[in-house]
Amino acid sequence: MELEKYRIHSKMARGLEKAQIVFKNARVFLSHTGEFVSGDVAVADGVILGIGTYEGEKEIPLDGKLLVPGFIDSHLHLESTLVTPGELVRQAAQCGTTTFIVDPHESANVSGTDGIDYILEQTESVPANVYVMMPSCVPATHVDDNGCTLTAGKMKAYLENPRILGLGEVMDAISVIEGSVSMYEKLNLFQNRVRDGHAPFLSQGDLAAYALAGISTDHECVTYEYAMEECRNGMQVLIREGSAARNLDAIVKGIVENHTDTESFCFCTDDKHIEEIRRDGHINYNVKRAVQLGLPLERALKMATIQAARCYGLKHVGAIAPGYQADFVVLDDEKNLNVEDVYYKGERIIPDEKAEIKPCPPMLKNTVHISKLKEKCLKLAHPGGKAHVILMEEGQITTQDSYGEVPWKEENGECIFVSDSRYQKIAVVERHKNTGKIGVGILKGFGLTGGAIASSVSHDSHNIIVVGDNDRDMILAVKELVRTQGGYTLVENGSVYKTLPLQVMGLMSDEGYEKVNETLADMIPKAHKMGIPAGFDPFITLSFMALPVIPEIRVTPRGIYLVKEDRMLRDPFER
Amino acid sequence: MELEKYRIHSKMARGLEKAQIVFKNARVFLSHTGEFVSGDVAVADGVILGIGTYEGEKEIPLDGKLLVPGFIDSHLHLESTLVTPGELVRQAAQCGTTTFIVDPHESANVSGTDGIDYILEQTESVPANVYVMMPSCVPATHVDDNGCTLTAGKMKAYLENPRILGLGEVMDAISVIEGSVSMYEKLNLFQNRVRDGHAPFLSQGDLAAYALAGISTDHECVTYEYAMEECRNGMQVLIREGSAARNLDAIVKGIVENHTDTESFCFCTDDKHIEEIRRDGHINYNVKRAVQLGLPLERALKMATIQAARCYGLKHVGAIAPGYQADFVVLDDEKNLNVEDVYYKGERIIPDEKAEIKPCPPMLKNTVHISKLKEKCLKLAHPGGKAHVILMEEGQITTQDSYGEVPWKEENGECIFVSDSRYQKIAVVERHKNTGKIGVGILKGFGLTGGAIASSVSHDSHNIIVVGDNDRDMILAVKELVRTQGGYTLVENGSVYKTLPLQVMGLMSDEGYEKVNETLADMIPKAHKMGIPAGFDPFITLSFMALPVIPEIRVTPRGIYLVKEDRMLRDPFER
Repeated sequence: MELEKYRIHSKMARGLEKAQIVFKNARVFLSHTGEFVSGDVAVADGVILGIGTYEGEKEIPLDGKLLVPGFIDSHLHLESTLVTPGELVRQAAQCGTTTFIVDPHESANVSGTDGIDYILEQTESVPANVYVMMPSCVPATHVDDNGCTLTAGKMKAYLENPRILGLGEVMDAISVIEGSVSMYEKLNLFQNRVRDGHAPFLSQGDLAAYALAGISTDHECVTYEYAMEECRNGMQVLIREGSAARNLDAIVKGIVENHTDTESFCFCTDDKHIEEIRRDGHINYNVKRAVQLGLPLERALKMATIQAARCYGLKHVGAIAPGYQADFVVLDDEKNLNVEDVYYKGERIIPDEKAEIKPCPPMLKNTVHISKLKEKCLKLAHPGGKAHVILMEEGQITTQDSYGEVPWKEENGECIFVSDSRYQKIAVVERHKNTGKIGVGILKGFGLTGGAIASSVSHDSHNIIVVGDNDRDMILAVKELVRTQGGYTLVENGSVYKTLPLQVMGLMSDEGYEKVNETLADMIPKAHKMGIPAGFDPFITLSFMALPVIPEIRVTPRGIYLVKEDRMLRDPFER
Repeated sequence: MELEKYRIHSKMARGLEKAQIVFKNARVFLSHTGEFVSGDVAVADGVILGIGTYEGEKEIPLDGKLLVPGFIDSHLHLESTLVTPGELVRQAAQCGTTTFIVDPHESANVSGTDGIDYILEQTESVPANVYVMMPSCVPATHVDDNGCTLTAGKMKAYLENPRILGLGEVMDAISVIEGSVSMYEKLNLFQNRVRDGHAPFLSQGDLAAYALAGISTDHECVTYEYAMEECRNGMQVLIREGSAARNLDAIVKGIVENHTDTESFCFCTDDKHIEEIRRDGHINYNVKRAVQLGLPLERALKMATIQAARCYGLKHVGAIAPGYQADFVVLDDEKNLNVEDVYYKGERIIPDEKAEIKPCPPMLKNTVHISKLKEKCLKLAHPGGKAHVILMEEGQITTQDSYGEVPWKEENGECIFVSDSRYQKIAVVERHKNTGKIGVGILKGFGLTGGAIASSVSHDSHNIIVVGDNDRDMILAVKELVRTQGGYTLVENGSVYKTLPLQVMGLMSDEGYEKVNETLADMIPKAHKMGIPAGFDPFITLSFMALPVIPEIRVTPRGIYLVKEDRMLRDPFER
């Protein structure tokens, strides 16, 4: 702080002069002592000056309501909700989240550092503190075909950006514990910063080796027991409650039952969709739910504030104390915990004020490069015998590798796989470098008939993934996404039913979340009508079918991938 | 860590190869979860690899004993115990303290940056982690005459030293909250580091302004209530239990009674003498005493380890977890908490192994510069009327300003103050720059007759302080300390009874603590025999009589100082 400003602030803190703004008569939550105290909070120039009895030029009466520090989402991906980063941040900020630790790994997989720059620029002037973790695993695995390889060398330039806090979730645990050179370079580059983990299923020894490499957080814990194992290894567990993965109940129930020390825990959302944020809330929901499960409110608030701040080395947020940034949430009372108002740097966030959508650089809207696609690319010629089938289960993104007979017909002397109501084709088309790579597999359980469904959002490489019961509609669906340069599309009987363009790297729309929601409200029920069971979100489930880290079988532009065996098959008929 | 080393360590952590050392079958305290778990701890190259079931090249059986992280003393001055830094550290390390956050402000007041360099060098290869806080208030006040002024400019060169963690205790709270330029420069220089406080009696508003300036710790809290006020302002309270100041009982009793969240607390000793360390222990004593007062052991251990590490941004100490330094304390059991062994970087500290005394640069042994001293300098000529008398009280270092009649005689037409059994003279002689400054006052309550007592340790400027009932012996005492270049001396009836030379900056002996203890064991009883009441430690009490921050009246080389009025009197007869 400048001296002149300090002198003025000091006088205000000492009560010698009126403070700029005073939040009067609140029950103030003090993160450092974990207690509520009654009093006023003095603020000037976005900074907290003191807690006590104060008079202000402007006074905001709180009449005994709770004033707590702005919440911190310790790990999330802004891209996952299909809207621009600023829109998501503004919606979540209205729920009380004023600090976001984001990992732009979807953008990085498509556009590399340009994608990271996009996230940084889009969140520069939002009413919240947005920090960025440098994506560590781009591409996610050695079998991925993505848009960019992010090496330690490319990351170096970001070290001086004060908004870059560390290295993003290190999913490739094997490379870590076996000491791969390229992984080591990345870990080493961020030696004195936070290195986020992603390692839900390691044995004791492997987990120790993973922590020994300097990885200090994980947001992937599903059970209380594994969460405790990570804490015992010195890691911070970011309890996740998002749209797809909901781990809070399991972990918090364990904490409550075992009277566990909660210092090693924070909250995160990882991936939470905007319509769910609007309906249920954001980190405020995590707090509320934890309290419902029996966690004392003070503990839950510390997890949502100062503990996350400490975990990421942020000294100016997470508490109401002199010198901290004036990011506040006003809650009605201890019981209901409803968010009544949110303040960022002492200024009220106006509910439902529309986020300005900042323009996107044209090159990021031109990322789908496929020119050679023909129907024959999808042909699955049967050499005789059985095939590997991707067996899907409702409510899961894991799949089973089912090896057996599939329907076929004879054509020009060849045995050709044919779709029916149970078996469809699935294909993944490389879209970044126009390599012509295409992997084709057989899917069972998704149930789509009379058309095709395709998406340019397919983790983590975000190639075009398409499912259909006939090759013509599948090709049409892919071509439609080439035309729109990314999106979701549904094709029915030879014509496009509807497309949601996601032009920003093929991941996000810059037409506003209302438009996105309106389009999805039509497309999703239509996809179900075309046969996709109610237990699947048609596009979200689809987006995981190319992710080569989730058991048991996936499809990639290189072919069929058997995850546990780490083995690539040219086609599903290969033994 | 280097990759090759990591690969080896990873294999050991995963149990694929035998670890270098395994501490077998311990009850391991995990700071991160605040729990004890049974198991083995694998170590290699001084680093912890994992906690679980391990085999080692070397195995140390612990048979169910407690293995806890090495303790951290979050604030201390190494000079106060009269021996060299290495000796003190080795003694304290044998009690389990393996990390020391030291403030060399005594050395800095005498020899400036040379004094700080001395402390850094002397502690470079001790069996402990020694970090240094840059002394912030040298000189302590504007009325001090010390050896050096430590400006922000002089501090700058130390910023790159990884052992310099921040700014030492900022005693001059007024300069802070009023925004003095020179104080601001120092605070600003350490903007992103820890800035230690020293502010035991601030009002709510002043404390807020003090914290707002970025000061984040205090070790001076005497009551639980004030400690909580500091925590509420976001400060970390370092609970002190030293030789002179004992604050642990008051604060910990409050914590226990109020079920207070203990995250904002650590432990420190501030000043603890070597003979007391040998008798009672060091930070292990703080832990033991806190547990006796009802604090759960787990909480006390977190305060003594990880909380101090976090407070000072030390990421490699304070916990038993992969990647942390292998600094351990073996305790016999939960009840007795006796230290059985201590390990630093995985190596056992051998009890009572003598510390090597590293040589001291000659210039630091030549710091007492007084040439012009004559008996007449001590004359107190009475202009008529009353005098300010420094009234001492047993067991206190505070004094009362008693204004009244004093004994006198007529000599050559002047009224001259004369000592008797109740009133003696006290003088402080500037010794750093040979300025000839000398302040003379009248002391009541110290009771010394038939001689003089003098010391070159006198806080914080460390000029020569002398008390006596006759001018001849006082002069002799000062001259003796000029001869020995610092120390403690006792003069009786015209001859030196005994001197403890403290040649290192006039603060420390480099002849070993046995020699120091032996000499003091003779001198202290002798001083009491000469009339100093049992309620005073003759030399320690004396050392505070020149400290111009403790109420109500002090003597400095400039004259008599009335603390509350911030007023200097040329002599005690001035109204």
